[in-house]
Amino acid sequence: MKKLINHPDNVVRESLEGMAVAHPDLLKINLDPPLIYRADAPILNKVAIISGGGSGHEPLHGGFVGAGMLDAACPGEVFTSPTPDQMLEAAKIVNSGAGVLNIVKNYSGDVMNFELAAELAISEGIRVLNILIDDDVAVKDSLYTQGRRGVGTTLLAEKICGAAAAAGYDLKQLANLCRQVNGNGRSMGMALTSCTPPAKGSPMFDLGEAEIEFGIGIHGEPGRKRICLKSADEITEMLALSILEDSAYSRKVREWDEDKAEWTELEITDPPFQKSDRILAFVNSMGGTPLSELYIVYRKLAQICEQKGLEIVRSLIGPYITSLEMQGCSITLLKMNDELIKFWDAPVKTPALRWGL
Amino acid sequence: MKKLINHPDNVVRESLEGMAVAHPDLLKINLDPPLIYRADAPILNKVAIISGGGSGHEPLHGGFVGAGMLDAACPGEVFTSPTPDQMLEAAKIVNSGAGVLNIVKNYSGDVMNFELAAELAISEGIRVLNILIDDDVAVKDSLYTQGRRGVGTTLLAEKICGAAAAAGYDLKQLANLCRQVNGNGRSMGMALTSCTPPAKGSPMFDLGEAEIEFGIGIHGEPGRKRICLKSADEITEMLALSILEDSAYSRKVREWDEDKAEWTELEITDPPFQKSDRILAFVNSMGGTPLSELYIVYRKLAQICEQKGLEIVRSLIGPYITSLEMQGCSITLLKMNDELIKFWDAPVKTPALRWGL
Repeated sequence: MKKLINHPDNVVRESLEGMAVAHPDLLKINLDPPLIYRADAPILNKVAIISGGGSGHEPLHGGFVGAGMLDAACPGEVFTSPTPDQMLEAAKIVNSGAGVLNIVKNYSGDVMNFELAAELAISEGIRVLNILIDDDVAVKDSLYTQGRRGVGTTLLAEKICGAAAAAGYDLKQLANLCRQVNGNGRSMGMALTSCTPPAKGSPMFDLGEAEIEFGIGIHGEPGRKRICLKSADEITEMLALSILEDSAYSRKVREWDEDKAEWTELEITDPPFQKSDRILAFVNSMGGTPLSELYIVYRKLAQICEQKGLEIVRSLIGPYITSLEMQGCSITLLKMNDELIKFWDAPVKTPALRWGL
Repeated sequence: MKKLINHPDNVVRESLEGMAVAHPDLLKINLDPPLIYRADAPILNKVAIISGGGSGHEPLHGGFVGAGMLDAACPGEVFTSPTPDQMLEAAKIVNSGAGVLNIVKNYSGDVMNFELAAELAISEGIRVLNILIDDDVAVKDSLYTQGRRGVGTTLLAEKICGAAAAAGYDLKQLANLCRQVNGNGRSMGMALTSCTPPAKGSPMFDLGEAEIEFGIGIHGEPGRKRICLKSADEITEMLALSILEDSAYSRKVREWDEDKAEWTELEITDPPFQKSDRILAFVNSMGGTPLSELYIVYRKLAQICEQKGLEIVRSLIGPYITSLEMQGCSITLLKMNDELIKFWDAPVKTPALRWGL
C-alpha cells in the first residue's frame, strides 16, 4: 500500500490536525470526538446545518464547513459511519437556539446513528430535523443501504441549504428545501479502478485491465454491472441516460414529527427529469481522475442535455465527493428553479468551495 | 490504459471544448491554435499575462485564466511544449496596448518557443517580457531543462502578478515582481506512482511496490533519487528540509532588454530561507493523491516551519499543478512580504482559483 500516511490508525486524526493548522480562520477541530466546525459557531438566530459520514470522500464533508454552507461535519473513520456522540456534540456546539438540520446520506449506519443522535439532542432540548439524501439511481438496496444511496446531491444540498440558512430560513423551511433538493437531484457513477482503504491495506475490489464498474458506490460497493472499458463519450451517455431516463421514484422515508414527537413515515415520490428543465450539471472525480478527463465527460454531457432539451444553467466540475484515489467519475444533475439558483450563487467561504466572500 | 477519453489524439482538444461549454462566462477557447483566454479580453490599460506549457498539469494553466490571474493560457499536447504561434496569437488577442508578460516554466522547449513568440510579437509592435520560473530545488539540469525546473511557484506567480496587473502595475513593474516571486519561491516533489500519458499508453516510468521517486519532475523526469517508501512525516521532512536548507541559488537568465532591443544575460542570485521569514505554504497533489493525505503532509510541514522559526501566513492545499493521475505531492514555500500578501489576497475569479469576486 503506497500512501502519504504515517499509520493507518492515525489517518483521520492527523488529517484533521492538518486541517486545523491550515484553516484556523475558518475552522475549529475537535479530536475527541472528531468534529470540524465553524470557527465562529454558533451563529446567532441561524439554523445550524450538520452533515457527516465516513472519511475518505474528501473534501466532503469537512471541506464544506464555513460561512454559507455547513456549520459542522462529523467524520467517521475511512468508509465508516460516525458515531451518535459526534453528531450530538456537534449539535450542542453549533446550535444557536434556532435548531439543527442534519443532512444524512442514505447508508444504514449513517441513518441509524444520525437518528439516535437526533433523539439524544431533542431530549436535551435542541430542535433537530434529519433529511435523507438518496439520489443514486444506480441500484435500489445495496451493500450498506436500504433504498438508493446518497451521493453527489449531498454537497449541492449542503450549499443550497447553507445559503438558505444564512438568509434566515427557519428549521422547517430548511427541511422542506433540503427534501426538495434531494428530490430534484439524481446521480450515477462509475469506476475505472478500485481504491485502497488504509486500514484494509489492499484494494476494495479487483477490476480487470479492460473492465469498469458501472454504477459504483462511493465505498466501492458493487454497481449495476461490470462491463468492458468504453470511450468517454459512451460512458458519459450511459451515465447521463441512466439519470435522465429514470422514472418517478417512490419510497417511504422516516422523518421526525416535531408536533407528535415521534418518527413518522413519509411516502415521497420524485418526478423524473423533463424537457426544458433548467439543471445544474455536476461532473465529479472519484479522486484519481484528472481534471482534463472530467472536461471531456462534461463536453459530452452538455451535448446530451442539449439534445434532450435540458438547459444547463450552472455547473460544477472537480473532485468533490471522492473515494480516496479511485479513478472514475460520477454525474449529478439537479433540477433548478429561481430559488435554488439564488442560493447556489450566494456567497460561500469554505476550504473547498468558495466564492463571493 | 484506463482513461476517460475517446482517442489519445483528441484529449487536449476535447478537454478544451469541455472547458468552453462549462465556463462561457469566464473563458473563450480557440481550437486552432489551442488557446484559453478571458472572455472579456483585452482589458483596457491592463498589462496582459500569458502562461502556457504542456497539457497534463491541469488546472495549470487554463484553469487559472480569469479576472485577477491570467489573460490567456497556451496548452501544448500532453507533456509537450506549445508552439510559438500559440503564444503569438494569444498576445495579439489579449494585448490592450499595455504589453504582455509571459510567465515561462523553465523547460527547454517552453523557453525556446516563448522566446521565439516574444520576438515575433515585438516585431509586430507588441511589448513583451518573458520571466522564467525555475523554483524546483530537486535537480540542476535535467531531462528537459538547463538549470532548475519550473513547478509550484508558477501558479503563485500567476496569482500575485495577475492581481498586480489588475491593480495597475506596468510591464516593467510586473516583470520585476514576477522575478521577485520566482526568487522567493522554492519547491520539491515526490511520486508514489507513475502516470500514463494518453499518446504513450503506458506508464512514464516503473516504480517498485515499495519505492518512491524523490525530487520527481512534473513530466515524470527522474528526481534526485529512488528510495524506499517512508512515512508521510519522513517524506515531508525530506521535502521541507531540501527547500529550507537549500543555499543561495545563482544562475544566468536570458531576458529581453527593451532599450537595447536584444536578449541579455542577467546574473541572478536568490538568497535562502531565513528564520522569521513569513511564508506561504503550498502542498500540492500530483493528481491522484487524496486531499486527506495532503493535510497529513501539511500537518508535519507546519510543525517543521514552526521549529525553524518560519511563520506560515498563507496556505494552499490541493491539486493545482499535477501530472495526470500520478500519486505523490510537492511542497512549495514562498517568502512573503506585505506587497505579496496583498496581491495573494486580492480577488480572483477563474475556474480553479476563486475568491472575493
